[in-house]
Amino acid sequence: MVLGTTFVLVFVPASAAVGILFALTQWYLVSYVTVGKSRVSNNGYMQVDEDGIDDASVNAKCAEIQAAISEGSEAFLTTMYTYLAIFMGLFSVIIFVFLASVGGFSFDRQPCDYDQTKSCPSSIASAFFSTVAFILGALTSTLSGYLGMKIATYANARTTLEARKGVGKAFAIAFRSGAVMGFLLAANGLLVLFLTILVFKLYFGDDWVGLYEAITGYGLGGSSVALFGRVGGGIYTKAADVGADLVGKVEQNIPEDDPRNPAVIADNVGDNVGDIAGMGADLFGSFAESTCAALVVSSISSFGNDKNFVAMCFPLLISSAGILVCLLTTLVATDIMSVKGVKEIEPTLKRQLVISTVLMTVAIFLISWFGLPETFTINVVGHEAKVVKNWHIFFCVGSGLWAGLIIGFVTEYFTSNAYTPVQDVADSCRTGAATNIIFGLALGYKSVIVPVFAIAVAIYLSFSLAAMYGIAVAALGMLSTLATGLAIDAYGPISDNAGGIAEMAGMSHEVRERTDALTAAGTRRQRSGRWFMVQGFAIGSAALVSLALFGAYVSRAGIASVDVIQPKEFVGLIVGAMLPYWFSAMTMKSVGKAALAMVEEVRRQFRTIPGLMEGTTKPDYKRCVKISTDASLKEMIPPGALVMLTPLIVGTLFGVETLAGLLAGALVSGVQIAISASNTGGAWDNAKKYIEAGASEHAKSLGPKGSDAHKAAVIGDTVGDPLKDTSGPSLNILIKLMAVESLVFAPFFAANGGWLFRG
Amino acid sequence: MVLGTTFVLVFVPASAAVGILFALTQWYLVSYVTVGKSRVSNNGYMQVDEDGIDDASVNAKCAEIQAAISEGSEAFLTTMYTYLAIFMGLFSVIIFVFLASVGGFSFDRQPCDYDQTKSCPSSIASAFFSTVAFILGALTSTLSGYLGMKIATYANARTTLEARKGVGKAFAIAFRSGAVMGFLLAANGLLVLFLTILVFKLYFGDDWVGLYEAITGYGLGGSSVALFGRVGGGIYTKAADVGADLVGKVEQNIPEDDPRNPAVIADNVGDNVGDIAGMGADLFGSFAESTCAALVVSSISSFGNDKNFVAMCFPLLISSAGILVCLLTTLVATDIMSVKGVKEIEPTLKRQLVISTVLMTVAIFLISWFGLPETFTINVVGHEAKVVKNWHIFFCVGSGLWAGLIIGFVTEYFTSNAYTPVQDVADSCRTGAATNIIFGLALGYKSVIVPVFAIAVAIYLSFSLAAMYGIAVAALGMLSTLATGLAIDAYGPISDNAGGIAEMAGMSHEVRERTDALTAAGTRRQRSGRWFMVQGFAIGSAALVSLALFGAYVSRAGIASVDVIQPKEFVGLIVGAMLPYWFSAMTMKSVGKAALAMVEEVRRQFRTIPGLMEGTTKPDYKRCVKISTDASLKEMIPPGALVMLTPLIVGTLFGVETLAGLLAGALVSGVQIAISASNTGGAWDNAKKYIEAGASEHAKSLGPKGSDAHKAAVIGDTVGDPLKDTSGPSLNILIKLMAVESLVFAPFFAANGGWLFRG
Repeated sequence: MVLGTTFVLVFVPASAAVGILFALTQWYLVSYVTVGKSRVSNNGYMQVDEDGIDDASVNAKCAEIQAAISEGSEAFLTTMYTYLAIFMGLFSVIIFVFLASVGGFSFDRQPCDYDQTKSCPSSIASAFFSTVAFILGALTSTLSGYLGMKIATYANARTTLEARKGVGKAFAIAFRSGAVMGFLLAANGLLVLFLTILVFKLYFGDDWVGLYEAITGYGLGGSSVALFGRVGGGIYTKAADVGADLVGKVEQNIPEDDPRNPAVIADNVGDNVGDIAGMGADLFGSFAESTCAALVVSSISSFGNDKNFVAMCFPLLISSAGILVCLLTTLVATDIMSVKGVKEIEPTLKRQLVISTVLMTVAIFLISWFGLPETFTINVVGHEAKVVKNWHIFFCVGSGLWAGLIIGFVTEYFTSNAYTPVQDVADSCRTGAATNIIFGLALGYKSVIVPVFAIAVAIYLSFSLAAMYGIAVAALGMLSTLATGLAIDAYGPISDNAGGIAEMAGMSHEVRERTDALTAAGTRRQRSGRWFMVQGFAIGSAALVSLALFGAYVSRAGIASVDVIQPKEFVGLIVGAMLPYWFSAMTMKSVGKAALAMVEEVRRQFRTIPGLMEGTTKPDYKRCVKISTDASLKEMIPPGALVMLTPLIVGTLFGVETLAGLLAGALVSGVQIAISASNTGGAWDNAKKYIEAGASEHAKSLGPKGSDAHKAAVIGDTVGDPLKDTSGPSLNILIKLMAVESLVFAPFFAANGGWLFRG
Repeated sequence: MVLGTTFVLVFVPASAAVGILFALTQWYLVSYVTVGKSRVSNNGYMQVDEDGIDDASVNAKCAEIQAAISEGSEAFLTTMYTYLAIFMGLFSVIIFVFLASVGGFSFDRQPCDYDQTKSCPSSIASAFFSTVAFILGALTSTLSGYLGMKIATYANARTTLEARKGVGKAFAIAFRSGAVMGFLLAANGLLVLFLTILVFKLYFGDDWVGLYEAITGYGLGGSSVALFGRVGGGIYTKAADVGADLVGKVEQNIPEDDPRNPAVIADNVGDNVGDIAGMGADLFGSFAESTCAALVVSSISSFGNDKNFVAMCFPLLISSAGILVCLLTTLVATDIMSVKGVKEIEPTLKRQLVISTVLMTVAIFLISWFGLPETFTINVVGHEAKVVKNWHIFFCVGSGLWAGLIIGFVTEYFTSNAYTPVQDVADSCRTGAATNIIFGLALGYKSVIVPVFAIAVAIYLSFSLAAMYGIAVAALGMLSTLATGLAIDAYGPISDNAGGIAEMAGMSHEVRERTDALTAAGTRRQRSGRWFMVQGFAIGSAALVSLALFGAYVSRAGIASVDVIQPKEFVGLIVGAMLPYWFSAMTMKSVGKAALAMVEEVRRQFRTIPGLMEGTTKPDYKRCVKISTDASLKEMIPPGALVMLTPLIVGTLFGVETLAGLLAGALVSGVQIAISASNTGGAWDNAKKYIEAGASEHAKSLGPKGSDAHKAAVIGDTVGDPLKDTSGPSLNILIKLMAVESLVFAPFFAANGGWLFRG
């Protein structure tokens, strides 16, 4: 161990600051492209429009559309944040009351758990700090999602306009904007967390256990926002998408993103609130939770007892290094090996993940070697303490990191139409929609196998080497390349929106081809397997994080073993394994209902607004945005309640053991459905695109658009929408959030829980 | 405790004999209807054919079709049994070698586990008896499936002919035939098991532990046959069904069961080999396994130590009483309150389950009270022995019994088109196939909730009252009404085949309406929710049985706790939860492939056989039968290998703890998919029927046949076929078989397993 306290106190905030500065630089570079003014003022101006479309009017139109999308996104998010504020207020009270009740609402300092001779903060104080951490986590997550949405809606028209100059320029804008989101989120999350720890420490002093237990509130806050972001955003985006498609494409036979379709703005808004704000909040939640889990476990390790500040901050060091590594990686895409042509887009994005993983492996090695004591011990409740060497931890973090990459590539294999699985699904469209659905479902089921083995190996390795601390840092390892993953993720909806804007603004054929080429690399419209890599990665990290939280929960609740051959645990296990199904049933139905409301409205507008089909009158976009907003916010309440209330009810009525079983069951069952739902949906999406693109002889034999096989493929795609964009990704949150909530409330459940199962 | 040894020695075989006699009587009554001879020889002759169809020729046609179906079924089963014989031979060797190796292939008697001063059979002897039990179980299961198929193909044309006299008569024939199957299977299984115990006892003497451990081979044998029956039969029936439908109904636009369709005989054969032989073997397996689990656990209880023969036979007493109760129940349907009109069919069948459950509750009470010591203890490895009172056991058995009824009714609610869930799914067909699929999947997910809670309550209750013994007898409780459940189950395909024969033989409109009315109560063509009740029941019992076997495995492997917060166990848990997905991917793909082979063949025949569409030439039915047979047997090997090899590999390489985790994971995850797949498929099936039948204003607004909504419903129905008839039901076997196999091999794994995870 070489690094000292000063190093940590400088390195962590400096990395965060560098990340934020980098994000702002990227933002500044994006802002070079001006929207809404004539092109003369644009420095990069080099070529003329081949189709002779009036430049000023195109620019004005882009500005107008961008404003509409931005307004719609803002409207949704602010309405959602209002709901969220009410929920946060209520839940803050619950947290405070529940936790303070453990010590009988006493203001008196109490003897510490780890050393009865010392005095630790009162239960009121602990409850207060947990609540504050919860609010901070929620606010940071909200801010991250909001900023991501802002930059995305800021960048989409700029990407469109830049596409006039060439695909490379457009790619740079879209990718830089994605990076803004990725780096802001990762750096903000880290910075707020670090500052919170430092401030809390002023009060907690040497009581690391109490401090880190209070800090878990941060993870809970982040994940609660993610719940609403993922579920609400997921319902929003799919209601708008399915609604727009069912009436526009199927009934009225107009192309996707046609400005005559009243739901078209809502559809584009959906990309921003679902894919960007939702995914951002999700991955932020994973980051916050895995850090909290690692901190809680490390607080009861030997360096917790030794008050080894540097070693205690190891999780933060990993994340800090991750930001720097991702920064270097981003430069490769934007500057060192910048994209020149269409064919380079896909490999460039893929390369990002590989480069960041390789660089990160080196960084992890250095940090483990210099930032941890050569040997230390991890305490395990009810078992002997585990003796760990610092190079063990390198393998733990590394196994998570590489498992993430494997999951990403397997996901790509199963969802990209460059490989046989999706091509087989496309082929099955020959015999109709039914075989397409059967083959798609089978593909999703099959795609679970390797990721689960990858997760299992990472778990076994890190678990055996360093118990629950190993799992927590493995999760952090997988998330260390967060900024890059997020940049790639955000790139998708941004370039998708850019394509939509090009279409709506009536831009030249060539420009639209370029934006299509961008999106071919990753969006709803031409989402490649690569996009799903990030999804797979989100699920994989969720699994590790949940297990780490589960482990921390078990420690904190003082459970020596979760023996599933006992009635309480087994009942929890089987009911827990059922919860993802219950939750999926709710979210899928919600999408269905919200989409029906949208269908009615779009139909009504086509029926009642004269001149709409002819393009002489504009549709009422705002009404569709409002319908999607209202429907999604209303529909997110039941699934949200299921997730938030289950741990509280089970913990209170049935006790800590049953809750432990429940968490394990939800985790192992939820991972499977999340992966299979996401990949099934992805495969259907790309099977459809495969037929539409007709890039090979085989694909041509199935197409063109409008053929029977294509119609069958469209049905699959529509079924896949809620699977891959709503219920699948929301399950990440289900498993993580229940675990972190249980962790926060563990002292209450341990003291007062199990009313029914007591006797 | 009142009952004595003599009582048991008389009561068990007598009940079995009564069951067998009753089955033969029913068979005799069915045989009254003659097939293939002119109607004059038929005593029940009362009415003339309204459509003036020549009687002799109709009868001859029926005989011909019946012969074709019977021949096809026989061909499939005999081919399958050949494969099975090879497999059984190989696996017998594996069992013998693995188990004998535990004691180093020694012929010397060894000190007993339960009492080191006594000597117990040598490891060679134990291995030998286990192998013999395995072969006996396999043979009994094979015989049961074969007999069921025989009576079903014997009864179908008779039901058709009897329908000429009225729906009540036809119902009686179909239901009696179902009863033959139900009672033969239940009684045979019990009798063979009881005799095996008595014979083995001659050798084992007082070594009940060794005896009952050897007896577990019986459960493994039964379940192995069930695996091939369910998977092979499931692939067969769906390949034929989907193949016949895709070409016949969709491409050639000819009705279902039209004799011009070359796959029509294969389709009818499928009902017999899949629904009858497959389901029969499945439920027989459950019966055998839960009895074995209960016996193994009871052998280490206090009445095992006390050599209390009556108490040791408690599981057999329950099953014996079940046969008598089911007999009374059957009389209610066939004689006391016989069916007069169409409207009575559905309530009569439903009433069967209720009556048998109520009567059985009384029987259980009596047997628990008089057949068990007032207080006894159940040993639990690594924990204190559990003190149990006899009335506790009443609640255990009863909770299983009533949970089964609840699951049955919930399943009916979600799959019958008399209730809103299916009607909502039908309604969603308005907006196309995609919404139909989304709503259907959501329905399946939702339908899991209550059954899982019912299972959880039964488990908690019986687990808390009597540890693993409680679970085992709860499973037996659910299965005690087996004969009635099987009768209802077999009734379905029989009356379905009857309808098919009526169609193919060109019988009068009235007769076809009557056979349709029969099938409206329960088959593939008009399968009501009631049919799925039996499915739900099969899954529910599989869950309990697997848990009981899991408990017995844990005991036998000497594992004190299955702590999922340990790496070995957790890795097993998450991989186990993945296995049902892997398995489903395989089986669904298999159905797809086999169906495609069938489609090609049917298309070929329509293309190359002149006069086929005009009905002047007969198609080549046999070729279709052969294709279905070959494809299904080939395709059943990979999923079969997955199930059979996983426990062996995991146990050997990763050891008993990982295997324990794996079993728990597969159980809790498999139950959910099995229920949801089965119910989703059922709901789609009945949503389609709902639109076709047009019985309400709402239904009429969606129809008629050929409307867009109906086409959407047909797509859902086709997707549902492999879900509800292949992958869903096969999952029962997956979870049970892996558990019983682990139980049988437990001594080997405990002694030699865990090569990789040892360090």
